[in-house]
Amino acid sequence: MATPSFRSATQQLRRQLGSRIVLTDPAARFEASFDSSKISFLPAAVIRPRREADIGAVLVLANRHRVPVTVRGRGTTLMGSAAPVRGGWVIDLRPLRRIRVDVEAGLIHAQAGATVGDIQRAAAAVGWFYPPDPSSKEYCTIGGNIACNAGGMHGGKYGVTRDFVVALRGFLPTGEFVEWGTATKKFSAGFNLRDLWIGSEGMLGVVTGAVLKLIPAPAERWTLLTSFRDETAALRAALMLFRQRVQPAICEFLDRQSVLCAERATGTAVFPGQAGRPVILLELAGSAAELREQKAQVLAWARAHTLAHRAARNRAEAETLWAVRRKCSGAMFELGDAKLNEDIVVPMRNYVRFIRYLAALKRRSGLPIPTFGHLADGNLHVNIMYHRGNRAEARAAEAAVTELMRTVVSLDGAISGEHGIGLAKTPFLRVQHRPAQVKAMRAVKRALDPKGILNPGKMFEPVRIWKFPKVAVHLPWDHK
Amino acid sequence: MATPSFRSATQQLRRQLGSRIVLTDPAARFEASFDSSKISFLPAAVIRPRREADIGAVLVLANRHRVPVTVRGRGTTLMGSAAPVRGGWVIDLRPLRRIRVDVEAGLIHAQAGATVGDIQRAAAAVGWFYPPDPSSKEYCTIGGNIACNAGGMHGGKYGVTRDFVVALRGFLPTGEFVEWGTATKKFSAGFNLRDLWIGSEGMLGVVTGAVLKLIPAPAERWTLLTSFRDETAALRAALMLFRQRVQPAICEFLDRQSVLCAERATGTAVFPGQAGRPVILLELAGSAAELREQKAQVLAWARAHTLAHRAARNRAEAETLWAVRRKCSGAMFELGDAKLNEDIVVPMRNYVRFIRYLAALKRRSGLPIPTFGHLADGNLHVNIMYHRGNRAEARAAEAAVTELMRTVVSLDGAISGEHGIGLAKTPFLRVQHRPAQVKAMRAVKRALDPKGILNPGKMFEPVRIWKFPKVAVHLPWDHK
Repeated sequence: MATPSFRSATQQLRRQLGSRIVLTDPAARFEASFDSSKISFLPAAVIRPRREADIGAVLVLANRHRVPVTVRGRGTTLMGSAAPVRGGWVIDLRPLRRIRVDVEAGLIHAQAGATVGDIQRAAAAVGWFYPPDPSSKEYCTIGGNIACNAGGMHGGKYGVTRDFVVALRGFLPTGEFVEWGTATKKFSAGFNLRDLWIGSEGMLGVVTGAVLKLIPAPAERWTLLTSFRDETAALRAALMLFRQRVQPAICEFLDRQSVLCAERATGTAVFPGQAGRPVILLELAGSAAELREQKAQVLAWARAHTLAHRAARNRAEAETLWAVRRKCSGAMFELGDAKLNEDIVVPMRNYVRFIRYLAALKRRSGLPIPTFGHLADGNLHVNIMYHRGNRAEARAAEAAVTELMRTVVSLDGAISGEHGIGLAKTPFLRVQHRPAQVKAMRAVKRALDPKGILNPGKMFEPVRIWKFPKVAVHLPWDHK
Repeated sequence: MATPSFRSATQQLRRQLGSRIVLTDPAARFEASFDSSKISFLPAAVIRPRREADIGAVLVLANRHRVPVTVRGRGTTLMGSAAPVRGGWVIDLRPLRRIRVDVEAGLIHAQAGATVGDIQRAAAAVGWFYPPDPSSKEYCTIGGNIACNAGGMHGGKYGVTRDFVVALRGFLPTGEFVEWGTATKKFSAGFNLRDLWIGSEGMLGVVTGAVLKLIPAPAERWTLLTSFRDETAALRAALMLFRQRVQPAICEFLDRQSVLCAERATGTAVFPGQAGRPVILLELAGSAAELREQKAQVLAWARAHTLAHRAARNRAEAETLWAVRRKCSGAMFELGDAKLNEDIVVPMRNYVRFIRYLAALKRRSGLPIPTFGHLADGNLHVNIMYHRGNRAEARAAEAAVTELMRTVVSLDGAISGEHGIGLAKTPFLRVQHRPAQVKAMRAVKRALDPKGILNPGKMFEPVRIWKFPKVAVHLPWDHK
């Protein structure tokens, strides 16, 4: 993909906004040329806006000269969604990061560049809680979370980013300022473009600010680690718990391969003498009284349905129970130097069928496919591990991911629960969506972005991202 | 608005689907000619589909012959949203009303014609709860609730219809079958047309089925009625409660005029010797343990901030406390034979400013404007009462509603929280939305409905609905 220079348009933009806002030095351009997928395309300029209105000026000019515009925050996405594949201009929203809590209403006003970690802390400081928690939350921005409808471990009980956005403001691709919704929990006036923007991966508008709903911070948490004979037993047991309408705040499943990675990395078995057992890590959250009720119910379930279980008596013990979950993802790189991390979703009623399919896929592909994820919402991270330099393994990985996506959709599931499409999932968009659905999406894109300037090359054009060379950089959130 | 006959297209449709599905008799056409706004426009035919696929066939033919198509359920909307103002065909979705609960996943699958009451009962039968509860819930369909993003009294704590929809299926205006989302709590694959459909008032697609999220049914409820010196004191007290992060399941406010209507209708004062005091009706919901904690907190608040309060010791007593809320809306017709019921939303921080403005509006207009509503989400029902036959009053009512809408928006509020625009709020769409916002909405409409056949005449074309004659019919949910 060649990236034209857009030189004169860039010069005009620079004259208009100044050289402190419009950067063209090689270091700034390189830094903005890739996201966490590490495939790199040099932009002609990077815009670091000082005010939200700067965005409008950029977009008006970009439309006039048909300059591609890619909007980014920290670039933690693994999907290539923030890679400026057509060059042009990159808008880096991180300078816009103001946060303000409305204490009575339980709402937080945040600019797009604020990190999710900062938002959570601002809420917690006054007794409120913002539940969505992607693992990169100390780095990733709320703008990026809105772009891909980020989720995290709290999705099953509390919901995902979309469930917490009450209003958005920003710019149409044509550069006009708009506000979708008000800072209120009810709004039913006109077509809902707010939610059309959420999850649109920077292709239908530029979010500059959001109003987010908060919930009262749970007073206490209680953590329980459980292990099972095998994966099927673990998933069946989880369904027994859900059938009782227990809603854990967190319910993380790790299959045998994930547990073994973590155990080898830490040098200790999760349950002594029981190495390599699949586990479920549960966390309850609520008031002291609520927890008392639920703990009793969950312990009764654990005694009946698990091989072993251990509860934390305090936060320090909880942290030791969390070690297996925190370690597993990085530890997987002992199994290969490349990972296809697929955040698929499977409906609960198909959990057991899916896990049996996955066992067969592991056997057939000859690849390790450690899998972990969020059982309360069916969002499982299937990690296909291989060695980049080994052509047979790379081919097997590509075949495995293709088959996986078809199977997930045939089980009435989703090809992405929280990462979005970006570039990485473009080969599978049409596995998920009928031709009429893709046609409707593209019609909406053309309606709002007639010149096609916002984040071009994403979503609709199939690209096999794993074939691209990667830049050799270490990002702060990389494992190890 | 003349309604052309579309005779040959209707004959073709009848040949295709049969005379049991395509009705052209005068009684069926009259019944489908109006909704709860009671303004009537005769359609050429009424379609009562037997299968969801029938809808696709209707839409393909409608596009070919440019026949307007208006989709309806029970027609409980007051906004005129289901009135077939351009004639053509009306699709009545009530025959499609299957319901199925997924007990483990806490999801309910419902066809568009199922009533909200039936959905709530199906969920409750297995321990789950579907919170959105428009007052017409025993009549209105989930399809209609999705069309206007219906709310109800539970909005503040639990959310509105949109917050419970995880997937939709149905037909694009061009007749192609589509599915938006899967029956899972996470989905982040492609543009979100699911939420674009929600609240689009039948103008962007036809919903035939939905998957809704449920929450565990609260084990107990506790009801408290409180009264205050005046409206300002009531709203200030509510803010004190919210500041403590107490989230009542229901928090209904009634101003002095609303209370007086109810008291005159029932012949008893809500609090003996304290007639005409504004009240707040609170309901807590949760487990026994949760309620114990919250009750103590709420009672301490009531002792400090209310003029009088009374708690229900059981459900029978709770029902007597509810009487004032249930009676007030119907009792208002003692103040006039016409009501402009405006479901506006005001942010919490502007409650006191708004209630002072409302007092001034009552004085200036000379009209009674009893107001009640949902304090936990700012959704207040402002009822401008007048006599239709009295031209001065009618003019005053029109002036009052126009001024009200401008004020609400200037206070960063919304012109509709749960009713939608339909015809009734078309004069105010541009008070809420900037020209660029309306332009974007219309561009989306053209992109998905190029022939403009779905529910034409709504949302964008200003109409003063209160000028139209009304049909003299009594609907089952009408007061008295």
